[in-house]
Amino acid sequence: MDIFSYLCILKILMNQIYKTMNTSYAIGIDIGGTNTDMGLVRNDGKIVDHRNLPTNRYTELKPYIKDIMASISEMMKANDVAEIEGIGIGAPNGNFYTGCVDNAPNLTIKGVLDFQKEMHEYMDVPVVLSNDANAAAFGELVYGGAKGMQHFIMFTLGTGVGSGIVVDGKLVHGSTGGAGELGHNILIPEGRQCSCGRKGCLETYTSARGIVQTYCETRKEMDDTQSLQGVEDKDVTSKMIGDAANAGDPVALKTYEKTGYLLGIAMANSVTFSAPEAIFLMGGPAKVGEPLLKPLRESFKKHLLNIYEGSCDIHISQLAANEVAILGAAALIKMKK
Amino acid sequence: MDIFSYLCILKILMNQIYKTMNTSYAIGIDIGGTNTDMGLVRNDGKIVDHRNLPTNRYTELKPYIKDIMASISEMMKANDVAEIEGIGIGAPNGNFYTGCVDNAPNLTIKGVLDFQKEMHEYMDVPVVLSNDANAAAFGELVYGGAKGMQHFIMFTLGTGVGSGIVVDGKLVHGSTGGAGELGHNILIPEGRQCSCGRKGCLETYTSARGIVQTYCETRKEMDDTQSLQGVEDKDVTSKMIGDAANAGDPVALKTYEKTGYLLGIAMANSVTFSAPEAIFLMGGPAKVGEPLLKPLRESFKKHLLNIYEGSCDIHISQLAANEVAILGAAALIKMKK
Repeated sequence: MDIFSYLCILKILMNQIYKTMNTSYAIGIDIGGTNTDMGLVRNDGKIVDHRNLPTNRYTELKPYIKDIMASISEMMKANDVAEIEGIGIGAPNGNFYTGCVDNAPNLTIKGVLDFQKEMHEYMDVPVVLSNDANAAAFGELVYGGAKGMQHFIMFTLGTGVGSGIVVDGKLVHGSTGGAGELGHNILIPEGRQCSCGRKGCLETYTSARGIVQTYCETRKEMDDTQSLQGVEDKDVTSKMIGDAANAGDPVALKTYEKTGYLLGIAMANSVTFSAPEAIFLMGGPAKVGEPLLKPLRESFKKHLLNIYEGSCDIHISQLAANEVAILGAAALIKMKK
Repeated sequence: MDIFSYLCILKILMNQIYKTMNTSYAIGIDIGGTNTDMGLVRNDGKIVDHRNLPTNRYTELKPYIKDIMASISEMMKANDVAEIEGIGIGAPNGNFYTGCVDNAPNLTIKGVLDFQKEMHEYMDVPVVLSNDANAAAFGELVYGGAKGMQHFIMFTLGTGVGSGIVVDGKLVHGSTGGAGELGHNILIPEGRQCSCGRKGCLETYTSARGIVQTYCETRKEMDDTQSLQGVEDKDVTSKMIGDAANAGDPVALKTYEKTGYLLGIAMANSVTFSAPEAIFLMGGPAKVGEPLLKPLRESFKKHLLNIYEGSCDIHISQLAANEVAILGAAALIKMKK
C-alpha cells in the first residue's frame, strides 16, 4: 500500500473511533396505567431497542422494578452497550425533586413509590423522573423541533390536556415538582365540569373528551350533521369527528372552530407568562390537522398581546407519536440541574 | 487601662471593621412618565439617600442620563460611599436583555433608549434594567417577604395590573424580555374592553379602573349604595370604594367580592404554571384589606387545583409602598445570570 492508502484507512479508523467515542445511550421509560414501555435510546434520538411490561399486573414496587431492570439489562446486552448515561422516567405524578411517583391514581401499585432508590439498588446511574407532558416537552428540546430553544411551552392533547414549560433551557418544576398543569387553567369561570372537581378547565374543552362534548352540543344546535347521523352521543370518538371534519362535515368543522378558538386563547395566555419562542402541540386530537390548526392559529393571533407579536408561533411536535414518550423520558437525564 | 479594657475596645473595633467590610451599596432608579426617583440603597435594604428628577422635562436621552449620573454622584459623596455594586433600573418597557428602554409610550424621550451604554460612559458598574412589576418582585425576593424563596409570583394592582414571576430564584424574562404580563391574561373571553385592544384581560377587572367599573355596574344593579350617593360615576375612585367598603357600604363590599373572586381565579391559574411557594400582592387597590382579601382567599382556595393544596398561600408585600420601586430596582443587580 502507498502512503495515500494508509492515510485513507487511518481516516476511516479515526472517524469510527470518533463516532464510537461520541455515542452514548440512555434508557427512557414511559409508565402508563396499563403498559410500561422501555427503550434504549442513542444520543442522536434513535430508539435502538425496546421492551414492554404490563404495569397493571403488579401491586408491589420491588418485583416491578426487578423486571424493569431485567429488561434494561437485556436491551444493553442485545446491543453490546456496556454503559448508559442514566434512566429517565415519564410517569403520572412523577416527582422530579424526590425521584418518586406520588400516589398516581391510575397505577395498581399504590402509595409513594421511590423509583430512584429502588433502581439504585441495581445500577449506579442517574435516575430522573417527571410527568409525561414534561417529558414530552423535554424530548422536543433534546431530540425534536425545539432544539436550541431556551423558552417554549408544550401542550399535549389526549384524554386530558397536559403541558410542559421550558424556561432558560430548563423544565419548570416549581416548588412542589408539579408545575406545568395548563390543562387545569380555568378558561371559562363556572364553565364545564372537570374531572378535577373544578369548573371550566381548558381540559374540559380541548381534550378528546371535551371535543366530543362540543360536537354533541353542536349537532343539537345545528341539526345538520351528515357523517355521524347514526352514531349515538355516547359512541362518538374524537377520531370520528376528525375524519368527519376532513370530509367536510359542517358540525365537525364547527366543533374544531370552537376548540381552536378556545385553545388559541389558552396559548396566548400562556405567552404572557414566559414569553416563549414557540408553542408546541402534540397528541391524538391534534392529528386532525387544518380543521383544528386554522382556527387555532387565527385565535392565537387575535388574542396574543401586541408586545409579543411576531415573537412566538405555534408548531406541531416533530417527534413521532409512538416514540415521544420514550424519547422524552430518555431526554430527562440531559436536563441542567 | 487593663487587659480587659483593651480586649473590649479591640472587639468593638473588629465589629466595626467587619460591619464596614460587609456593607455595600447599590443605586435603584424608578423611571415613571412624570418622575424619576433615585435611591442609594444599603445591602440591608435601607434607602440611605434619595433624589428626584422630572422625567417629562427631557426629550433627549443624553442630558437626562447626565443629570441622573450627577444625582448619583451627589448621593455617593454626601454619604461617603466610594463605590457601588451597580445601578438597577425599573422602567416601563425596560428590557433586561438589551439594557434598553424600548419605545415606552408614557415617556417624553422617544425611541429605543440604551441606558446601559450611556451610563457606562460615566461609570463602569453593572447596569440592569427590567420593568417595574418585575423589579417589585425581585425587591420582595432580596429585601422583603420572599427572602429565600425559589418560586413565587408577584401581582401588582394599580392603574394597570402587573406581575413578576420568579422561577428557580431568577426572574422569568422569556425570549423577548417581556415575560410576566399576567394582567393581560384573558380571564373572561370576549369580556370587558382592555386598553391593550383585546377583551377580558384580568386588568380590566382588578385594576383601580376595573374596580371602579365594577362598582358603577354594581350600584346600578343593587340600587342601595349609601356612602357615594352624590358622586357621579366619572368621579368615583378606587380609594373612595375602599373607604366605603371599610365603612360597611354593601355596594362597595359586593364590588370587592366580585373583584376578589376573579383575582382568586387568576392567581389559582398562575399556580398551574410554576407551582410557586407563595403569591404576593401589592399596590393601591390591595390596601383596602379584608373587603378584598377575604373573598380573594376564598376564591383562591376554591379554584386551586387539588395537587397544589397547602403548597401556596397569598401574602401581602412586606415592602413599604413608597420604597418598593427603588428597592426593587436596586435588587435587580443581585440577580443570578
